[in-house]
Amino acid sequence: MATAALAATAAAETGAAHAVPRGGAGPDIGILLYDGYSLLDPTGPAEVLSRLPDATVTMIAEKRGAVRTDTGDVAVVAQRSIAEVDRLDVLLVPGAGNRGTVGAMNNEALLRWIRKIHRHTEWTTSVCTGSIVLAAAGLLDGRQATTYWASAEYLQSTFDVTYLPQRYVRSGKIITAAGVSAGVDMALYLASLIADDDTAKAIQLAVEYDPQPPFDSGNAADADPQLKERALQLLAASQV
Amino acid sequence: MATAALAATAAAETGAAHAVPRGGAGPDIGILLYDGYSLLDPTGPAEVLSRLPDATVTMIAEKRGAVRTDTGDVAVVAQRSIAEVDRLDVLLVPGAGNRGTVGAMNNEALLRWIRKIHRHTEWTTSVCTGSIVLAAAGLLDGRQATTYWASAEYLQSTFDVTYLPQRYVRSGKIITAAGVSAGVDMALYLASLIADDDTAKAIQLAVEYDPQPPFDSGNAADADPQLKERALQLLAASQV
Repeated sequence: MATAALAATAAAETGAAHAVPRGGAGPDIGILLYDGYSLLDPTGPAEVLSRLPDATVTMIAEKRGAVRTDTGDVAVVAQRSIAEVDRLDVLLVPGAGNRGTVGAMNNEALLRWIRKIHRHTEWTTSVCTGSIVLAAAGLLDGRQATTYWASAEYLQSTFDVTYLPQRYVRSGKIITAAGVSAGVDMALYLASLIADDDTAKAIQLAVEYDPQPPFDSGNAADADPQLKERALQLLAASQV
Repeated sequence: MATAALAATAAAETGAAHAVPRGGAGPDIGILLYDGYSLLDPTGPAEVLSRLPDATVTMIAEKRGAVRTDTGDVAVVAQRSIAEVDRLDVLLVPGAGNRGTVGAMNNEALLRWIRKIHRHTEWTTSVCTGSIVLAAAGLLDGRQATTYWASAEYLQSTFDVTYLPQRYVRSGKIITAAGVSAGVDMALYLASLIADDDTAKAIQLAVEYDPQPPFDSGNAADADPQLKERALQLLAASQV
């Protein structure tokens, strides 16, 4: 993203922008990666939240190193292992394809870590089926939450959770987002809570988030059964 | 068609499930990473384009390995080096902060590779200041294009390019997108060109792209000078 050349140059010349180490004063934001997550789930919110003043965004996984997405084509690097992280101001759990979600739900080490971190977070958040992972960790009992449209029935029938078909749902300090791209909307809302509305608005402009999709087919409530089936087929075919 | 190393590994691990390599029939899509790119620029389109039937999405960089974003906090893995890639159906060049954009513009090896790949692509595309990199490679001469809002004047005054303040602009086989998040909109448009409208609509539903940002501040044409300044300050402060 371009900074205007002048703004960035000015900051670099004065040296002021990084005189204080980043992350010293701002929120410590951790995003949990696990095998099979969907790429946009962690990266959309990371883009937004990394623009919060003095924020540190850290990708975390069971082990340090590259963590593959659901398609197997792409990997993001986890800089820290869960053993190295005891506290976070903000935890974000992304969603995944079926294999990744089930894997995370059955990974007791991950669930234990999520519970431990959640105890002291300011905000515990999820994108897509990340809410199912939070539910498996026992964090959503008796709460309202959202999730990926195709997983709503599963979330509600498996856990003591009331599904709300919203872009994001806040329940106490837990914020769940709907599928994949909803993480960007949720992250802007979260930015407004962590900082203020003006900061969140400036971040929205910084990432030029003035959405104009060429089609209007992203809302499952309006989609016909054929389109839903085709969407799920494309997902299944693209996932390893 | 490229075979992503990671996919190949996955296939080897799971055995018969991937006896036929993915990407055998579909588009071979390469995304060029370079030091200082903005995270959402490559990952938003990768999320969308990876759902195209039989598509292979490969992250490519000057050298294989982790490539850091503009904030320095996060890295995506490049599975292939530019020396290993001679042909692509689709090339996508993401944008970056000031440092990263200038670095790419002055990297003759990268520009040479972009020119070489462009000769045989079906589509050559960019997000954000990626269009400035395409312009530096000489690909936008005499064309209409878009870029990050804060870089529009620079693009137009430095190169023989007519800036259009649109979410994405198609000029022949080149498609440029506006800043950061505009790559998602562009990728859906591109998906409709590569496949068809119905497939693109299904992908939009697959990634639940029904944008509902909590604010309406993402369009620079509507933003007041103070908000613009604040946006650029936040960017500069978050970038290394």
